[in-house]
Amino acid sequence: MSVYLHDIPMTEAQRRIREALQEAGLWQVLGIETLPLSEALVGRVTAEPVWARLSSPHYHSAAMDGFALRAEDTDGAMPTAPVTLLVGSHAAYVDTGDVLPEWANAVVPIENVEALDQNGRPADDPRHPYMIRLRAALPPWTHVRPMGEDIVATQLVLPAGHVLRPVDLGAIAACGYTDIAVTRKPRVAILPTGDELVPIGTPVKPGDIIEFNSLVLAAQVASWGGEPIRYPITPDDENLILERVREAAQESDLILLNAGSSAGSEDYSARVIERLGELIFHGVAVRPGHPVIFGMIGRPGESAGAKVPILGVPGYPVSAALTGEIFVEPLIALWTGRPATQPEEVEAVLTRKITSPAGDEDYVRVVIGEVGGRTVAAPLARGAGVITSLVRADGILVIPSGIQGIEAGEKVRVRLYTSSRVLNRTIFAIGSHDMSLDLLAQFLAERGLRLVSANVGSLGGLIALRRGEAHLAGSHLLDPETGVYNLRYVRQYLPNEAVMIVRWVGREQGLIVRPGNPKGIKGLEDLVRSDVMFVNRQRGAGTRVLLDYHLGRLGINSEAIRGYQQEEYTHLAVAAAVASGRADCGLGVTAAAKALGLDFVPLFQEAYDLIIPCKYLEDERIKPVFDLMHEPRFRQAVAQLPGYDVGQMGIVVQGC
Amino acid sequence: MSVYLHDIPMTEAQRRIREALQEAGLWQVLGIETLPLSEALVGRVTAEPVWARLSSPHYHSAAMDGFALRAEDTDGAMPTAPVTLLVGSHAAYVDTGDVLPEWANAVVPIENVEALDQNGRPADDPRHPYMIRLRAALPPWTHVRPMGEDIVATQLVLPAGHVLRPVDLGAIAACGYTDIAVTRKPRVAILPTGDELVPIGTPVKPGDIIEFNSLVLAAQVASWGGEPIRYPITPDDENLILERVREAAQESDLILLNAGSSAGSEDYSARVIERLGELIFHGVAVRPGHPVIFGMIGRPGESAGAKVPILGVPGYPVSAALTGEIFVEPLIALWTGRPATQPEEVEAVLTRKITSPAGDEDYVRVVIGEVGGRTVAAPLARGAGVITSLVRADGILVIPSGIQGIEAGEKVRVRLYTSSRVLNRTIFAIGSHDMSLDLLAQFLAERGLRLVSANVGSLGGLIALRRGEAHLAGSHLLDPETGVYNLRYVRQYLPNEAVMIVRWVGREQGLIVRPGNPKGIKGLEDLVRSDVMFVNRQRGAGTRVLLDYHLGRLGINSEAIRGYQQEEYTHLAVAAAVASGRADCGLGVTAAAKALGLDFVPLFQEAYDLIIPCKYLEDERIKPVFDLMHEPRFRQAVAQLPGYDVGQMGIVVQGC
Repeated sequence: MSVYLHDIPMTEAQRRIREALQEAGLWQVLGIETLPLSEALVGRVTAEPVWARLSSPHYHSAAMDGFALRAEDTDGAMPTAPVTLLVGSHAAYVDTGDVLPEWANAVVPIENVEALDQNGRPADDPRHPYMIRLRAALPPWTHVRPMGEDIVATQLVLPAGHVLRPVDLGAIAACGYTDIAVTRKPRVAILPTGDELVPIGTPVKPGDIIEFNSLVLAAQVASWGGEPIRYPITPDDENLILERVREAAQESDLILLNAGSSAGSEDYSARVIERLGELIFHGVAVRPGHPVIFGMIGRPGESAGAKVPILGVPGYPVSAALTGEIFVEPLIALWTGRPATQPEEVEAVLTRKITSPAGDEDYVRVVIGEVGGRTVAAPLARGAGVITSLVRADGILVIPSGIQGIEAGEKVRVRLYTSSRVLNRTIFAIGSHDMSLDLLAQFLAERGLRLVSANVGSLGGLIALRRGEAHLAGSHLLDPETGVYNLRYVRQYLPNEAVMIVRWVGREQGLIVRPGNPKGIKGLEDLVRSDVMFVNRQRGAGTRVLLDYHLGRLGINSEAIRGYQQEEYTHLAVAAAVASGRADCGLGVTAAAKALGLDFVPLFQEAYDLIIPCKYLEDERIKPVFDLMHEPRFRQAVAQLPGYDVGQMGIVVQGC
Repeated sequence: MSVYLHDIPMTEAQRRIREALQEAGLWQVLGIETLPLSEALVGRVTAEPVWARLSSPHYHSAAMDGFALRAEDTDGAMPTAPVTLLVGSHAAYVDTGDVLPEWANAVVPIENVEALDQNGRPADDPRHPYMIRLRAALPPWTHVRPMGEDIVATQLVLPAGHVLRPVDLGAIAACGYTDIAVTRKPRVAILPTGDELVPIGTPVKPGDIIEFNSLVLAAQVASWGGEPIRYPITPDDENLILERVREAAQESDLILLNAGSSAGSEDYSARVIERLGELIFHGVAVRPGHPVIFGMIGRPGESAGAKVPILGVPGYPVSAALTGEIFVEPLIALWTGRPATQPEEVEAVLTRKITSPAGDEDYVRVVIGEVGGRTVAAPLARGAGVITSLVRADGILVIPSGIQGIEAGEKVRVRLYTSSRVLNRTIFAIGSHDMSLDLLAQFLAERGLRLVSANVGSLGGLIALRRGEAHLAGSHLLDPETGVYNLRYVRQYLPNEAVMIVRWVGREQGLIVRPGNPKGIKGLEDLVRSDVMFVNRQRGAGTRVLLDYHLGRLGINSEAIRGYQQEEYTHLAVAAAVASGRADCGLGVTAAAKALGLDFVPLFQEAYDLIIPCKYLEDERIKPVFDLMHEPRFRQAVAQLPGYDVGQMGIVVQGC
């Protein structure tokens, strides 16, 4: 039966996986191995309960350096009525950990006795005196660690299914074990396939895709307690892929076939699985990642019943990594006998409306921070190809199937990737992007702080401040009437919020053009030429306002500009558009042009300010931002960005 | 200058460590190594910011399988007015990930076109038709992943000091790296010393201590990102220890000398450090662990300025492990360039009063659970030798110096070892101990639940229920008037709480005696013999009530019983006392006697019930306890404990 890319609900997919594994006898721990205790066992899972073989201590043990004695012999001892005991018959020196003599039942610390010689004078060697004098009685078992104080033989020390930590190894050794039975690591074969793939380190040409999914999947498998086996890239050839899968089936417990899981002309995964066994589903209603495949194939050379599960993993990096989290991690948990990872969850307020296909379970990556006492979640790029969205994500917001979207301001539950502890070390910067913010992020990271910047343009930043969703906003909004930056917009958009405007950088704006400026572009007047393709910034961005201002001054109609509707969200994205040939020019900063080896036609000098609500000025997270404005090493690093001027950095344009 | 076991405050100790390391140029990352990207890098720390070398995608890429075209050519296409494009000049088939042709700026998915042959009939090969027909216009850049969509060359991808995760490796590879600069792992030498130590696996005799601190420390070091080097045990010989330390100083960045850090006759650590360098402190006001030592010694064969820090780590296992957490983890964090671990914290209500020495910072291990909507923290054994207190601990409650204790019911902050997620998977059982609870813990663990049992005796359990600190209590309190178990006590101690009493096990109680019963003990009458030493259970324990009841019936005065004041808290501890010779007999259950190979004089049959507040009967955690009462595999496991009877397990003595 061919099941051709028909999305089934997630719960149905999970049910089919469980049933297929149960049928194959694989819905359980895969195996047990007994290994000598060593630090390498941290993270391994106990395969059996650990019942103590030995008590700890396994003898009555002195708990102090001092003299072992019979407590009864000290009865009546008082400061005014000391008791004297002969060493040898009634007292014996013991170090901490020594066996308590059979006849003794207490230890008096050496500092609590007078060690005397035969004549009643202080003994030369306080540890080997003739006698000791005590001025206080001791209850029995004082300063003794009785046998079994820590562990009594036969008690349960650790249950099966326990993930070993350093102290557990100590307890296992203490109760008489040399080896420990742990569950075997599942072997997971990872097979990258595709003509377009090139190994990491290969110089790339257009159309080449650097094959790193197998690296990410292998790292995931290892970190979850499996043993990854990475295979070299197999080209898009059905028979070659089939041979590789057959090979992997001999030496692994699970095969991840990446990619070819879609339904394109070169997507062989489903057909290969059908030829080698049974295709159990092709497509799950989950986004990103829906073209995931699951099947069971025969294990070559073994009995007919021996099966190996195989997952067809989608090719987009975010889809691949999430397929790992959603499908592979629970299997490794099952097979190693530990509970599946239960991510910590927090409740947060969504900063931006998101829409979602009604039928899919939608995995939205978000960054999280605490702003003004509220936990806020800002959605990251949704594209399945944007691996940086996973790198930057603090967590995942799962929109269940059946829900078509969530409004800004709604409360959502977010599964955290990180500890909730980092949230109050996070600075949320929402606004216009500037390369100096990347440098700021690096310098703040050295101080244990995290700068999360969402690039929504200058106006978007002011609105985010108004909604209480950011600690600061970078803005370079020119007032066309006064020529002053930001002041008017702050008054207009934040009338009820006391904010500081502090000058951050001055930067050159101009036209980013291809090397050698082949189209001879000299100014905004050239944008209306029919042979010039422009790339614009998004509405609300300061650069866009600057452009429109100057277009207005020059009397240029924006409708006459080809590409005026092409919007990019960062300076570097504009430069990339020019570098790629998609546009001939775009307005942006020198730094972005230089970074991609492009030429630059300087036109204006503009101010880029930080807008910071006064209520955050005393925030522990914001103070270092001000400190850095005056730190020579940071200022120098920013000044080295081409076209940047830090001469006014830190000047307060509007105070609190 | 000799600094002889003089406790300094923790902050002073931290200051001296910092100053000594700053002076030696060691208050920084120790080194950088450039390694090829591989899954083994997970957990390593970036040594430098990762700035993108390559954009991702590094070309305009088709985002769907379909036909590349010029968006302008589709202008005006509508269901009633299709547009037809010739393949070759105006459209080209592309797979997902293919390079967009130079002339194209959009992709139409294959399922959205009619693929036609020259005659306008459906093409044989839909991927290579003569022409395609569209019935909707496409905006430019539809289904195209523009160059730099994920990463723009030169942008910051990861800051320095970032702990690498699987997806980070993908992003690093995507932006053009083959290798990555990470911080070097600090090498930490671990030197166990002591005549009493024997390696794991050696058969032990009294006085032998199994050397597992080096295992725990090595596992800690490895899990924090260091490279442990374990040395064999060195005997208590100052010169041998000195030689070993000198050797370690040549190949490590930090030496952990364990133990000999106290001030006993065989404690050479301080002297060895003074001979090789400078002793910076000896003693920190922290409990457990105060005899910790810190010094700086010369690195042999290098210039006079080259120094190696050395920590004298106390010998008690809890002290050793906490010394690792308090002193070693922050150093490894510093040296690897990552932030020090910030444990999650929760607020909890303390279940039991604890006292603390006024001058010490006191690290109290606690178990945590959620009971009746409150988070409660129950202190574990305080002894520095009780490693199981660290194994069982969910977290640490730090009592600052200057505070002499905390009352029961006070709110405390607990640093968690575990995720707060497990707290609502935890069942708190406080009451009388029974071996079947160990089995219950194991069976519940298989169901993802954790049974935390604090053994405070039957009465203590009822009081804990009254205070709302436990989900259930095991109890075997005999009513001397009626011969009925538990009912009267429940009414007396829990008058306002609706509880269920459910029969758990029947068990034989009797006298645990040494093998062969050398003293010929036949019954309670023998306890008054002058040659018989008894070991008792603590006040409130059901076994204690049983004893007192029968002593009363027999008219035996407890004051005539030697050892009546010796109290143990579990059946097994009583058995261990007999096994060790500390007592001749004690009242307890058969199972405990059998477990330690002792003989048993059966005297009475008693009932052991579970007392469960009615409000928890519907709790997701408690239901599995009831399920297990009826599960044959569990009943059989309990029935196999010697002297146990499960015939009445699950019978409701008092319902809700």
